[in-house]
Amino acid sequence: MAPALSPLALPFPEMGTVPGVRLATGAAGIRYVGRPDLVLADFAPGTTVGGVFTRNRCPGAPIDWCREALAGGLARGLVVNAGNANVFTGRAGVAACAETAAAAAGLLGCPSGQVFLASTGVIGEVLPHERITAALPALADRLSEAGWAEAARGIMTTDTFPKGAIRRTAIGGVPVRLAGIAKGSGMIAPDMATMLCFVATDAGLPSPVLQALLARAVAGSFNCTTVDSDTSTSDTVLLFATGLADHAPVAGPEDPALADFAMALDALLLELALMVVRDGEGASRLVRIEVAGAVSDGSARRMALAVANSPLVKTAIAGGDANWGRIVMAVGKSGEPADRDRLSIGVGGTWMARAGTVVPGYDEAPVVAHMRGRELEIAIELGLGAGRGHAWTCDLTHGYIDINGSYRS
Amino acid sequence: MAPALSPLALPFPEMGTVPGVRLATGAAGIRYVGRPDLVLADFAPGTTVGGVFTRNRCPGAPIDWCREALAGGLARGLVVNAGNANVFTGRAGVAACAETAAAAAGLLGCPSGQVFLASTGVIGEVLPHERITAALPALADRLSEAGWAEAARGIMTTDTFPKGAIRRTAIGGVPVRLAGIAKGSGMIAPDMATMLCFVATDAGLPSPVLQALLARAVAGSFNCTTVDSDTSTSDTVLLFATGLADHAPVAGPEDPALADFAMALDALLLELALMVVRDGEGASRLVRIEVAGAVSDGSARRMALAVANSPLVKTAIAGGDANWGRIVMAVGKSGEPADRDRLSIGVGGTWMARAGTVVPGYDEAPVVAHMRGRELEIAIELGLGAGRGHAWTCDLTHGYIDINGSYRS
Repeated sequence: MAPALSPLALPFPEMGTVPGVRLATGAAGIRYVGRPDLVLADFAPGTTVGGVFTRNRCPGAPIDWCREALAGGLARGLVVNAGNANVFTGRAGVAACAETAAAAAGLLGCPSGQVFLASTGVIGEVLPHERITAALPALADRLSEAGWAEAARGIMTTDTFPKGAIRRTAIGGVPVRLAGIAKGSGMIAPDMATMLCFVATDAGLPSPVLQALLARAVAGSFNCTTVDSDTSTSDTVLLFATGLADHAPVAGPEDPALADFAMALDALLLELALMVVRDGEGASRLVRIEVAGAVSDGSARRMALAVANSPLVKTAIAGGDANWGRIVMAVGKSGEPADRDRLSIGVGGTWMARAGTVVPGYDEAPVVAHMRGRELEIAIELGLGAGRGHAWTCDLTHGYIDINGSYRS
Repeated sequence: MAPALSPLALPFPEMGTVPGVRLATGAAGIRYVGRPDLVLADFAPGTTVGGVFTRNRCPGAPIDWCREALAGGLARGLVVNAGNANVFTGRAGVAACAETAAAAAGLLGCPSGQVFLASTGVIGEVLPHERITAALPALADRLSEAGWAEAARGIMTTDTFPKGAIRRTAIGGVPVRLAGIAKGSGMIAPDMATMLCFVATDAGLPSPVLQALLARAVAGSFNCTTVDSDTSTSDTVLLFATGLADHAPVAGPEDPALADFAMALDALLLELALMVVRDGEGASRLVRIEVAGAVSDGSARRMALAVANSPLVKTAIAGGDANWGRIVMAVGKSGEPADRDRLSIGVGGTWMARAGTVVPGYDEAPVVAHMRGRELEIAIELGLGAGRGHAWTCDLTHGYIDINGSYRS
């Protein structure tokens, strides 16, 4: 059942710690047997929170729960389970959220509304929350600042490697840390993907500031990535700030003192988002699609995503074929403004098509070599305006069919 | 190289003849070796024509050619080649169209502007039109009213079976015939698909009437089908009317005398469109997705297509898994109005999920039996309004990857 490690996998980093954040991971037996599937996190009193969630119109019960909790702006706990997404579970799903949050709140000594929840796994089966609430006390007993690596494993579903990233930055000269973990492999599309991502920092930032910074960072990372165009019902990115770093208060998201922090957050989220694409179900190649010369940035991004989602482009890449004709097709099918006779397409720095036709005698050798690599670059120049955008995707291989033709059975 | 016959293939019908239509098929060696790849059709003087083309923004040169020729409303000839799509070929592509049309016009004794062109196959390689013009005279010598079956084979690319359909109908009590052939297997999505479809009738109808009837018939057939969500640069549906049937003139597309003819045309196009889905690359199952209770018909159709295009739904079907959770996901990702707590999902007549949650104790046996069949029905009831729509698709299997990971090489 377990797919082989993605050839694009990256090693898990030394995560270190974030003051005010403690984690514990255990096996509740929710669906998987003999592996961790439950994570509890505890945040220092006063921790603020920002969140971004799926735009799927049929979200899971934990999404509803988090949206409501987010209004309070404060977080003391987080419970994440793998194996069951608690989606499309009606009133039983709502009750499962309430019971889980209440149990965690009791253990952490906080109101239920300060406990955040995320679930990932199969859709439509009632979450056996009593297994979660039975397992939580033992987790609460061994919360540890060093719990990040175990937690990254505990939230995996079809992931083939755990995903974590850290940044050291500063606010007003005072050192600040960022640490994040993510999971995601399939049902991955922008806005967002079945991905869960939890980031913590010891910065002290009001919830609205976190929200603004997080929204921007998600726009430039998770919302530029796709594995299979399928947007999950459970996508969640949460950013927790414990406030234990001793920096001066900031005025707002645009405060110049936050410039480095914002850059670090952007980079951290992008690193995690690309790990999800690297672990795309069946992925053997990571592909960046760059669109320039579009009528607007939005148009460029939508076109990049249309190319990134084209099954024919993705299968060509899987076959090592620089099939720019399929790229032309995908540009055209995006519906975004394009003029065939101004369109240029390049792969790995070689322009293969220019101004509406093949470049006579272009050098195939570097293109062939590039297509054999693990990380590919496709460039599309429209010649219409100054709009730019990009997207990341992976190839579409037999592995995707293997994994998804038998997921539930 | 040649994939095995689709398990969903249908036998080729006895096509009969359409008075005023003669066809010939031959091997021009454009790309394929040892198989027919070129079709010439000759239409009686006075033949009128309607056409619908791809909405891809980077169409092939033959699409430009046909759009211009269509303005004249008259057709005397048709040249179709397989193996090279003449797409993204710049001025060479435009010249290839002009040369081909001129050669056919010379043989048929008509203006170039009354010769229609269609090409399907690889994108971005210059069409060796001299092979076409060299082969056309021999085809012109053996034009035959009985040439339909050969022509259906001559236009195939990755198709595993030839596609044809006929209807006998009447206009004002006078018998009228319809015959059509189609090709298509991959790069298939609405608006439209790499499909070519050529229909002829001996009815006598002005070009604007043909255009109106054809647009409606395409909306209910090819534009409700998808194989892989990739919209080709070359999609073409042409309807030719020779006028040799001796019925009274009609007043317009809404003339009651045309009711039966319009129904027959709708049914013929749907039959051909579903053949294309049945021959979808790697397809092992034909799936109809029915959406009801939407806020509008357009919303229902867009949602049906979102489900039809979801790789996770399509791989689940390939695995014989009635994974309604993925259907919930696809409903939500469509972006169309949906209320999770009113949503119901059924497969093969069994409601598995009702009003936002699983139907307790629903009978799995008929669902499992249905999923093992070749033709599946998915029903989605939104409970929001009176909008209805549907789409057809096929499953996503290893066969699709096999075919598309090595198409050019």
